Amino acid sequence: MDKDIIVSWMEAGMIQVPNLLMQKYKQIGLDEKELALLLHILSFIEAGNEFPTPEQLAGRMTINSSECSGLLRKLVQMQILSIEEGLSEDGIRFEKYSLSSLWARLADELKFDKKQNGLKHTLLEEH
Amino acid sequence: MDKDIIVSWMEAGMIQVPNLLMQKYKQIGLDEKELALLLHILSFIEAGNEFPTPEQLAGRMTINSSECSGLLRKLVQMQILSIEEGLSEDGIRFEKYSLSSLWARLADELKFDKKQNGLKHTLLEEH
Amino acid sequence: MDKDIIVSWMEAGMIQVPNLLMQKYKQIGLDEKELALLLHILSFIEAGNEFPTPEQLAGRMTINSSECSGLLRKLVQMQILSIEEGLSEDGIRFEKYSLSSLWARLADELKFDKKQNGLKHTLLEEH
Amino acid sequence: MDKDIIVSWMEAGMIQVPNLLMQKYKQIGLDEKELALLLHILSFIEAGNEFPTPEQLAGRMTINSSECSGLLRKLVQMQILSIEEGLSEDGIRFEKYSLSSLWARLADELKFDKKQNGLKHTLLEEH
Repeated sequence: MDKDIIVSWMEAGMIQVPNLLMQKYKQIGLDEKELALLLHILSFIEAGNEFPTPEQLAGRMTINSSECSGLLRKLVQMQILSIEEGLSEDGIRFEKYSLSSLWARLADELKFDKKQNGLKHTLLEEH
Repeated sequence: MDKDIIVSWMEAGMIQVPNLLMQKYKQIGLDEKELALLLHILSFIEAGNEFPTPEQLAGRMTINSSECSGLLRKLVQMQILSIEEGLSEDGIRFEKYSLSSLWARLADELKFDKKQNGLKHTLLEEH
Repeated sequence: MDKDIIVSWMEAGMIQVPNLLMQKYKQIGLDEKELALLLHILSFIEAGNEFPTPEQLAGRMTINSSECSGLLRKLVQMQILSIEEGLSEDGIRFEKYSLSSLWARLADELKFDKKQNGLKHTLLEEH
Repeated sequence: MDKDIIVSWMEAGMIQVPNLLMQKYKQIGLDEKELALLLHILSFIEAGNEFPTPEQLAGRMTINSSECSGLLRKLVQMQILSIEEGLSEDGIRFEKYSLSSLWARLADELKFDKKQNGLKHTLLEEH
């Protein structure tokens, strides 16, 4: 039985959340519900479902599906979440969520921090 | 510059969040703020700070430090978060957060699901 | 450009390797080539290819495809790697690699260590 | 007992290995032993030991400690691994391994691939 538990645990898998996202989500205008929603999307994508419905997402959250739709819309408007079109092998068009704008936004924050730090060093060295 | 970004990104690191936690936190009585708080604790531990203060935690969240203290107390009472004592190499006593009860709780949920599924199979096979 | 790099980096993804595997692979009879081969299989599975060919695997390694076939056979015989049958949505049968026996083996090692430690404690307490 | 297993498993932790490293290590001149050695260093760093000895590293590998020292030297010469100096809180100087040159090298490979792809697209569009 013990072994089955480890096997199921490993097969359920993990999502990798950049520490930068944890440190910066507030700065880029997100709250904890929106953070959790993004993590749920990552978790569904990881499990092979690239376009979970608001019902599927809300089913794991303490919000209902219409509140969930509202948050998804807001994240798309904020250009943190985007919806991309794909073509399956059979030529069927499908939609999927992409978090690439989120990673790009975090990269921007990182560059800004580096520049600020550089500036600070320069100012300190001048004196 | 590009390379620096990747290096900083990798050095900032990632936290690993079990998909099971994403699927079950609601069932074990947590909401999105409490989930985020647990992830912040994981993120601080990962960065070497095993006992972040309510101020440090709240500083990254959309709640203030007294609300944060309240949530920490609640998580300890729910036996999801625990505070352990350690002894440093120099013999100094220190406190640290432990999430082992959370992992144990998720393991319980997993066993329960397996048992339910086993039961369902048995029932289906009887007919 | 910088941002693109982070986005590509995140989209290329990561594999999660249990520290236990790093600590125990030698004990369970594996060497570095076999460890690397298992990690390549994990990496292909993560990218959606659940049954990479010996050619695809060897293409990323410093061995040729016949040596790779030999190692795959050995890992299957050692019951560390297994090949499972699946049915696609269209009813087409397919094969895929599974690492569940590897996780089960590591869980065994962990239990054995715990028992040994327990035993040691008991022996020490007796004196 | 089952629960203990999951707790120990989670506490042993995981290392995150970029898929890019798996795809490119051969191209940047590494073999499977050297890859494994880098992963062991990551695993020790993750566990809080930033400067494992050749004996500690070789202890988990199928090589002896003098072969291990040789490989460490080679990785440093290849500028894939570097040794940095740090100062502890008590003002004691210490050495630690850094993998930042490895991440930078992988970022280079990624940029090169992107440029090649861009070139290919441009060439194809011209015809």
